[in-house]
Order: sequence, then C-alpha cells, then structure tokens
Amino acid sequence: MSDDRFSKSVLSVNISGIRKLFEAAGPNAINLGIGQPDFDTPENIKAAAIQAINSGFTGYTQGLGIPELRAALCEKFKRENHFEVKPDQVMVTSGASEALYITASALVSPGDEVLVPNPGFLAYKSIVNLLNGKDVSFKMQEDLTPDVNDILEKITPKTKAIIINSPGNPTGAVSSKEDIKALAEIATDKNITLISDEVYEYFIYDGEHVSPAQFTDNVVTINAFSKSYAMTGWRIGYLAAKGPYVGEILKVHQYLQACASSIGQKAAYEAVTGPQESVTMMKNEFRKRRDVLVKGLNDMGLRCVMPKGAFYAFPEVANCDEAAANLMKNDVVITPGTAFGENGKDHIRISYASSMDNIKKALEIMEKVL
Amino acid sequence: MSDDRFSKSVLSVNISGIRKLFEAAGPNAINLGIGQPDFDTPENIKAAAIQAINSGFTGYTQGLGIPELRAALCEKFKRENHFEVKPDQVMVTSGASEALYITASALVSPGDEVLVPNPGFLAYKSIVNLLNGKDVSFKMQEDLTPDVNDILEKITPKTKAIIINSPGNPTGAVSSKEDIKALAEIATDKNITLISDEVYEYFIYDGEHVSPAQFTDNVVTINAFSKSYAMTGWRIGYLAAKGPYVGEILKVHQYLQACASSIGQKAAYEAVTGPQESVTMMKNEFRKRRDVLVKGLNDMGLRCVMPKGAFYAFPEVANCDEAAANLMKNDVVITPGTAFGENGKDHIRISYASSMDNIKKALEIMEKVL
Repeated sequence: MSDDRFSKSVLSVNISGIRKLFEAAGPNAINLGIGQPDFDTPENIKAAAIQAINSGFTGYTQGLGIPELRAALCEKFKRENHFEVKPDQVMVTSGASEALYITASALVSPGDEVLVPNPGFLAYKSIVNLLNGKDVSFKMQEDLTPDVNDILEKITPKTKAIIINSPGNPTGAVSSKEDIKALAEIATDKNITLISDEVYEYFIYDGEHVSPAQFTDNVVTINAFSKSYAMTGWRIGYLAAKGPYVGEILKVHQYLQACASSIGQKAAYEAVTGPQESVTMMKNEFRKRRDVLVKGLNDMGLRCVMPKGAFYAFPEVANCDEAAANLMKNDVVITPGTAFGENGKDHIRISYASSMDNIKKALEIMEKVL
Repeated sequence: MSDDRFSKSVLSVNISGIRKLFEAAGPNAINLGIGQPDFDTPENIKAAAIQAINSGFTGYTQGLGIPELRAALCEKFKRENHFEVKPDQVMVTSGASEALYITASALVSPGDEVLVPNPGFLAYKSIVNLLNGKDVSFKMQEDLTPDVNDILEKITPKTKAIIINSPGNPTGAVSSKEDIKALAEIATDKNITLISDEVYEYFIYDGEHVSPAQFTDNVVTINAFSKSYAMTGWRIGYLAAKGPYVGEILKVHQYLQACASSIGQKAAYEAVTGPQESVTMMKNEFRKRRDVLVKGLNDMGLRCVMPKGAFYAFPEVANCDEAAANLMKNDVVITPGTAFGENGKDHIRISYASSMDNIKKALEIMEKVL
C-alpha cells in the first residue's frame, strides 16, 4: 500500500482481527470470540433511556457530560475505588474506546513511547501507533498479570504512559494490590501517566479490584458501562483524573466528539444509581461458566491459568492460528492469541460471555479438534 | 503551560470558545450562540429508537454501521447528491465530529498541511493541529464563500486535504456549482482529498446544494443527522467515499469508537427512510427567522450578506469581542467572529436556531447595545 493520499500512521496500522472474526462468523457458529455480555441491558436502564427520549432530552450536553452523572461517578469512585475526584475531574465519553484514545492523544507526541501489555487488548498498540507514538511491549508473569520489573526496565526518557488493564483482556488475570501500588509509585516517581483501563472491574471471581488512583495522582482511570451493565451498543464510558488531565483531554473530546449521547448518559445515570442486582446476576453466571470452561479445558489436557476476572480464558495451545482456523471450520469462533500481540502466540482466547449450552457444545468440539 | 506529561499538540490547542460561551450563559440569556436546532427530534424517529431499546438492540454493531442504514444512505446519495457509492463505502459515525476527526487522522501525517476556511468551523483547525498537522487558512470571497483562487495559490507539496463546508458555518454562505466543480477538479489534478462537510445540506433558502462527490473520487463526503433532524444529542453522523478511503478510515474508527450507538443508528434509519415533513417544517421556520433577523440587522445599519443556508447570520461589526461582551452583559449570547479564525474579526455570528420571539427580543437589545 503506497497511496500517498493517506497518513503514514494509518497505513502502519492493521484492521482489528477480532472485529474481522466477529463479522466473518457464520450464522450457526458458536461465537466465543467477542467480548460482549450475552445479556440484554437491564429494564430499569432501558426505561430511563426511554424517559429521556420522551422528555426531549435530545440535544447537546456539556462536553464533560451531564452533571448528575458526573456527581454520581464521584460517589462511585469514593465508595468503591477509594479515591476522591470532583465532578469537573470526570468526563463522560463515547465508550472506553474514546476515553482511551483521547487520553493517549493528550499525552503522546510523535516518537513518544507508551508501555503496553503483550498480550493485551489490541487497541492499546494501535491507538499509540495512530498517534505516531511507539508502543513498547511489557510481558506477563506466570499468573498472566503484568511483570512490574519488566515495566520498570523498559521505561526510557521517552516513556509518556503505561497502560494497564486489570482484570485483563485477553488473560482474565487480576493484578495484586502490591503490583498496582508498585506501578502507581513508578508513575509518581518518573512523572509519567498510568492509564488504568478498568472496564472489567465488576467481574472478579477471586481476589479484589484495586484502582491505582488511590495511590497516585499520575493516573487516568478509564471505565465504561458496556461490560458492567450489558450496554456495549450504547457507547458510554468515562474517565477520571486529578490535576490538569481532564482539562487537556477535554480539548480532544470536544473536537472529536462534542459530547457523549444525551440519551445514553441518562441511561448510564440510572445504571450507576439504580439497583445493582443485574451486575451480581451476570457475575454469578460468568463464574459458573468459567468453572465449567476451565475444568473442561484442563480435562482435555490444555493448560489454563484460572482466570480471576473478566470473561476470558486464555489456555495454551501448540499453534494458535491453526487452532483458531480448525475451530472456525467446525463452527466455533475463538480468537488466536497473536491477535493480542506476539507474546500471545501460544494461547487462544475463549470468551465465556456466551451461554452455558454454547460453552458445553464448544468444549465437545474442542476436544475433537484441538 | 509546560507540564511535560502532555503532548505538544494538545498543549497547542485551545478549548472551544463556543462551548465556553454555551456553558457560561445565564439561565435567562437569549442564546443565539449555539448551532443546534431548537426543535425536538421528530416523533417517528423517537419511536424507532424506543423500539430498538425494547427489542434489545443494545449490542455492538458492525464497525461500519448497520447494513440497512448504509444501504439507505447509498440511496440518499444517489437520489439527492447525484453520486453512487456501495454500502461498504459508507460509514456511520458518532456525529460529524468523529467523521471529520477520523478522516483527517487517516490523511494527515505530522507536518502535513490542510487548507481550512477562515472564517470557518473552529474544529477544522483544531483537529488538524491535534494531529500535528499545519492548518493553512484560505479566505472568502465577497459573498463569504471560499475563494477558489486563494485555495489554488496555497496548495503546496505538503497539502493533503482541503476542508469545505457548504452551506457554511459561521457564514451561512452556499458555494456555487461552478466553485464546487472547480474544487473537485483541483482535488483530482493534485491528487489531494477534498473533505466536504455537508451537515447543513437541508437548510438552503436560495440556490442549491452541490456535493463535490459527483465530480471527483478524491472526496470524503461528511454529513450527520444532528442538524437535519434535530438530533444533536444522539451523536450520529456518516461519511462516504470511493476507492480505499473508507477502509483506511475504518481503522481509526474501530479503535477510537468501535461503532456508533446501536440505538442512534436505528433512529437514524427511520430519519432517512421515514417522512421528511419535519425537515421542511424546520427549513420554512428557519427561513422566516432569517428574513426577520437580516432585515432587523440591516435596519439598524449593520451590513450583513444575506445567508443562503444553514442557520447563521454573519453581520459586520466594528469590534467583535467588544460586541459579544456587551451583548452578553445584556443577556444576549452570540459568538464573536474571531472564534472562527482571524478573518472573522469584523463579524459576529448570530444563530437563528432560536425562537422568533427570542430573535425579535435580541434585535431590540442589539439595537441599543451595538
């Protein structure tokens, strides 16, 4: 590709393999490839959105988002994540995707380096590259959480940010409090920014979720309603940070997005302030599926670290691309580990955000195919 | 500001003056500052959104957008804009804002130049600067449409794109077919990209709307439902282009946005395929207001080119910042021309997307204050 109408950065980036898989899957395939809860948005949240539509809440909102939602998020951060921010230090975004991109845009000049997990969510590397930054991979420990020593070794004077994601995609791993604290201290000491993607926060089955924002002011906390409340299609996320971060990030947000959907914001307000039973129900269901899936994988002889969170298992296979292709031929869609970086090459990612029936059927097929 | 945690580009960009004004306006102020129709989203569109919510259409869509909406937009382009594209050459975005940003991102490498209207919508310059590109202003003719000769003179080997906006913000000016054709030929000849922002397409009172895509393949056509259907809060826009454009732009879109709101897309499908009476009603109402506003301005001795489209008048004043401040003190919010670039300094922008009553009251106050 050498069409000189296009930017160097866009030509350097590839289309997401996951989205390709998602869009290529046949109608009868068991799709364990996509990171999307197989639940509908809870009724109370839908009712709030319908109320917003009927009441004519259809215009632009403040760039940062509606004040009542930002105030509710401040309460949430204090109550659940043990850090305090003011409403003007919180921004509502069009999903965690936008939040990640605009945060990176506010931090990364061409040639700057950003440390990204490998294996890790593909967007991290691609966003850094789209911004003409250089992604520098860090590796995982035996338990698939980020290796803090490797991160420390890879920091250079050009490092602007470290992206972490606990619970993690594609690993399901949950970092320890000690590791999160160590990373927070590195951010403070080096005056670089920790970007903490916490979208799987509510889906932890063993251990606890720890936000680095309780240990450092050099962090942008990113989260979304997508996974927690089965709201992927609504495109509502948020970010929070102390000091000047939100003021700088807002400049990108207002030109790139203006504001998040007014209707989605009203739905999100109900999500964060209303009953939380739906979250508990989903979490319990995911836990059951995880247990069946991981036992099934182990029983067929595949090594798989027990995922403590999110809704992914990341078992080891001999050749991930071959495994993915063979499973696809047999109508099971999973994601080859290489979609998450070179270090994922001996793994496949299996999303258990699909019904127990599908998981059991897929296990039977895997047993034959793998 | 010298906080070295932040990117050079974000530090170089200012927060939008318009949003500041919008957010600072008192509760009793007559707001003629904001570019948002003062109508509610039509009932048929709201009903389609509610139907989408109730039917559980709340998950991710294809990155390009739902197929039926893209097919309907292909029909719309053929019928109204006289060019043909295929559904995979159309992308649904989170407003025209995102469409503009991701298009620019796919075109502009650091140091590249983009020609932008001055005066023009502030986001054009800021988006180019956020991408480490250089904005190069082109000036307007006497009738406030882009000066094609000035554009031609300012093209250099570094020029990657020309942004045009007819009907125009803040001018209300509508380019002639000859000028649009000339710009299209320049894009073809120089192999650079025309970015055609057509969000005010349906609000033309004199003359006709001409899409450059009927004359060149080197154009990305950008539009949105926000203004046409009083849907600013829904955040649904779209873009279309032939050749490899959409494939490249999709890479940015999928990492930055994943997809546009599933619910908003269903609403947009109803907007483009359903009854169009609401558009006609708004257009007729805007025309009446325009006539009253421009006559009022002329009667008080302010020179004002008759705006042929959009919902802005752009009269001349001696000192635009002083005029804006004095009007603000008297509870009338308008936008100083400098918010749209240095060449706007002898103007103010008055949005007539506000009630006839408000316009008449504002005229009385302007007569005293200006």
